[in-house]
Amino acid sequence: MINEEYKAMLGGKSVIRELSEYATARGKEIGYENVFDYSLGNPSVPAPPDFAKTMVDLYEHGDPVAIHGYSPSLGIPSVKEAIADSLNRRFGTNYTGNHIFPTTGAAGALAHAMRAVTKPGDEIITFAPYFPEYQPYVNGTGAHLTVIPADTANFQINFDAFEAALNPNVQAVLINTPNNPSGAVYSAETLKRLAAILTAKQTEYGHDIFLISDEPYREIVFDGNTQPYPANFYANTLTCYSWSKSLSLPGERIGYVAVNPSATDADLLVPMMGQISRGTGHNCPPSSIQLGVAKVLDETSDLSVYETNMNLLYDALTSIGFDVVRPGGTFYIFPKALEEDATAFCLKAKEYDLILVPSESFGVPGYFRMAYCIDTEKVKRSIPALERFAHEQYGLN
Amino acid sequence: MINEEYKAMLGGKSVIRELSEYATARGKEIGYENVFDYSLGNPSVPAPPDFAKTMVDLYEHGDPVAIHGYSPSLGIPSVKEAIADSLNRRFGTNYTGNHIFPTTGAAGALAHAMRAVTKPGDEIITFAPYFPEYQPYVNGTGAHLTVIPADTANFQINFDAFEAALNPNVQAVLINTPNNPSGAVYSAETLKRLAAILTAKQTEYGHDIFLISDEPYREIVFDGNTQPYPANFYANTLTCYSWSKSLSLPGERIGYVAVNPSATDADLLVPMMGQISRGTGHNCPPSSIQLGVAKVLDETSDLSVYETNMNLLYDALTSIGFDVVRPGGTFYIFPKALEEDATAFCLKAKEYDLILVPSESFGVPGYFRMAYCIDTEKVKRSIPALERFAHEQYGLN
Repeated sequence: MINEEYKAMLGGKSVIRELSEYATARGKEIGYENVFDYSLGNPSVPAPPDFAKTMVDLYEHGDPVAIHGYSPSLGIPSVKEAIADSLNRRFGTNYTGNHIFPTTGAAGALAHAMRAVTKPGDEIITFAPYFPEYQPYVNGTGAHLTVIPADTANFQINFDAFEAALNPNVQAVLINTPNNPSGAVYSAETLKRLAAILTAKQTEYGHDIFLISDEPYREIVFDGNTQPYPANFYANTLTCYSWSKSLSLPGERIGYVAVNPSATDADLLVPMMGQISRGTGHNCPPSSIQLGVAKVLDETSDLSVYETNMNLLYDALTSIGFDVVRPGGTFYIFPKALEEDATAFCLKAKEYDLILVPSESFGVPGYFRMAYCIDTEKVKRSIPALERFAHEQYGLN
Repeated sequence: MINEEYKAMLGGKSVIRELSEYATARGKEIGYENVFDYSLGNPSVPAPPDFAKTMVDLYEHGDPVAIHGYSPSLGIPSVKEAIADSLNRRFGTNYTGNHIFPTTGAAGALAHAMRAVTKPGDEIITFAPYFPEYQPYVNGTGAHLTVIPADTANFQINFDAFEAALNPNVQAVLINTPNNPSGAVYSAETLKRLAAILTAKQTEYGHDIFLISDEPYREIVFDGNTQPYPANFYANTLTCYSWSKSLSLPGERIGYVAVNPSATDADLLVPMMGQISRGTGHNCPPSSIQLGVAKVLDETSDLSVYETNMNLLYDALTSIGFDVVRPGGTFYIFPKALEEDATAFCLKAKEYDLILVPSESFGVPGYFRMAYCIDTEKVKRSIPALERFAHEQYGLN
C-alpha cells in the first residue's frame, strides 16, 4: 500500500523551488534576461577547467573497468587520503583517509552524520536563519529539530536563547557557516563560545554532544578573510562538505563527512556511516567523480563574481534604505523586508519581476533572501527595479 | 552520542567482501592471476566505448554550468523521457518520463521503492536465494523481510511456501530476476502465477500489494532468450534497475525506479520518491552521468563472455559430479556443495585458491556461489583446481 506519510508530504512544495519555477515560466513570457531571478542557489560560474581536463583524461586513458568499478563502501582510499591531506595542509588538522567518508554532496553527508550520532527521538539544535531542507533531513532520521531564534544584529549565534534551550536530550548541534541565507561567517569568537558551552554541557549531561558543521560555502568568504575551521575549536565535530559551490559542481553530488580524529569513537564513525548507507541506498558517490575531484582539491572556480555582486547589492540596498547586515561570504544576502509580512512583500516584488525568497521558511519572520549567483550585468540592471519597487510600494526614495 | 544500533552493526561484515579481501591479500602472496577469485559480482568487461565518447563530448563541448548544475529533484526531464521511450520500445509498455525516478543505482532504487509502498512494521516478502543486502535495505525502512525457502529444483518460486506465508501485513513482494545468486530467469509462467496470487490477495485483503522487481541483470540472459518483463504481468509493479551490469558501470551508481502507469496512484509515486529522497540525503544521481547514460540506453557492454564462462563452468562442474541447475542468465552459478556445511566446504576450497561464497547468507543452506565475471582464461585454469579439490576432499573423479 502506498505510504500515507510521504503522500501527505506532496503538498509541501519548497517555496524556493516554486519561485524558481515561476521565474522560469515568467522568463518564457518576457525573456529570462528580464526576470531578476534571485531565487536559487545554483552557482553561475563554471567549474575550473582542470576538472573537465581530469575527467576527459580518465575517460580517454583510464581502464574503464577500474574507473567505473565499485568503490569500496567507505570510499576510494587514495581519494580519502588526498582529501585528508588537503584539509591538513589548509587547517592544520591531522585527518587520515580513514576519517573521511565520501558522500553524494552535503545532503548525503548530513544524512550520515546525523544518523551516526543521534537516534530517533533525540533532539538536534540548529540556529535561525537556517537552510529549510534541514527540517526534512532531520525528520528522515527520526530525531527532532529545535530552531534557536536568530541573532538579527549580526546573524552570529543567539547564545542566550541557545543556553536556555539546551537539555540532556540534545545530542547534536547543527551549524552552517558561511551561512545560507544570511551570508554570515561565524567568527572565531562565536565558535570558541559555542565550543565552551558544548564542552560544559557534555560534562553536565554525562554524554557527548556532536557538532555537525555544514560547510559548502567555506571557500566563498569576502574581504580577503577566511572561515575559521569549526573542527579546530571543538573535538566532537563532524565536518560536512560539498564541492557544489567551490567547484561549481552541485549536480555532481560529491562531498564528504570528515570525522575529527579527536572525537569520541573517531575510528568507529566512518565504518558506522558505511553501515548506515546500506539502509539508505547511498552506497558511495560515483567512482569517476571521486577520482576527478581528488585531482582538483586545492582549486576553486573563479568565485570573485560573488563578492562583486554582493558589494553592488549591499550598496544599492543600503542606499535605498533597506536594513541589511553585510554578508561575510556565500552568495546570499538577507535584508529586512519593508513590511512585517515577508511573503506579502515578496509577492509585491514579483510585479517588478524581482524574484525574492521570503524568510519564513528560514525560521525568521520579516526578511528575504536574494541569491546573487547570477550575472553581474543582471544585478546592475535589477537595481533600478529594486529602487522603483521600494519607492512605489513603500515610499522610499 | 554515537548511535549504538549502527555501532553494533560493525561486527556484521559481508561474507562476500571478506572473501574478496582475502583473495586480494592472497593475490599479493602468490600473484592474483593464481587466485581463482569467484567472490565478487564486479563486471569484468569494459563499458561500451560510446559511453566514454559521450562523456568526453559533454566535458569538452558542453556548458559546464548546465552539465554540472542541479538536476531537478525528480531527475532531468529529457533523461527520464529517453528512459521511458527505451523501455516502451523494448517491452511494449507505456511509460512517460513522469513515471521514471533516476536513482544512485539499484540500491537507491530499492530504498525509494520500498519506502514508497510500505511503512515501518509492514512485511516485505522475498524468495531464497536472495541478494544478502536485501536484509539491510529492508531494515533501513523499518519494514520486516520474510524469506520464502528456495525451490531448489530450478530456483523459480516455491509457490506453496509463498502462499502459506502470505498474510494481510504483506504490503510488498521483492523479486530479483535474473537472479543473484542462482542465475535463474523467472519464466513467463512463474510471473503469471505470481501475478495471479497477488491479484487474488489484493482483493482478499482489501489493499494493494506492490511487486518490487530488481532487474540489474535483465540484459544478461543466455541461449538467445530474453527476460520476460515483470511489469507486463502485474499492474502494481515498481521496476528497479541499474546500469551497473549491462553497461559495466557499477561504480557510477546510476539506475532508476520505473512506476507502471497502471499501478495504483501511479502519478503520485515518483513525486513521493522525491519527498523520500529529502530524508535520506539521496537527491538524484549526478547530472553528467544521467546525461551520459541517456545517450547509450540501447547499448550494452559485450556481455557474451559471461555466457562463455557459464558454459565452461557448468560443463566442468557437471562432469566433476556437482549437482547444479544451469543458469539462464547473470554471471553467477549456484551449485550444491559437496557437504552439508557450505561454509566448511568453501573453507576447504580456499586451500586450492578457489574463492567460493557459501550460500547461508543467500538464505539457502548447503550451496555455494561462483561469480564468473572474470577472464575466460582464468576460468579455464580454475577447472583443474576444482577437479583436484573435489577429488582430494570428497573422492570425486
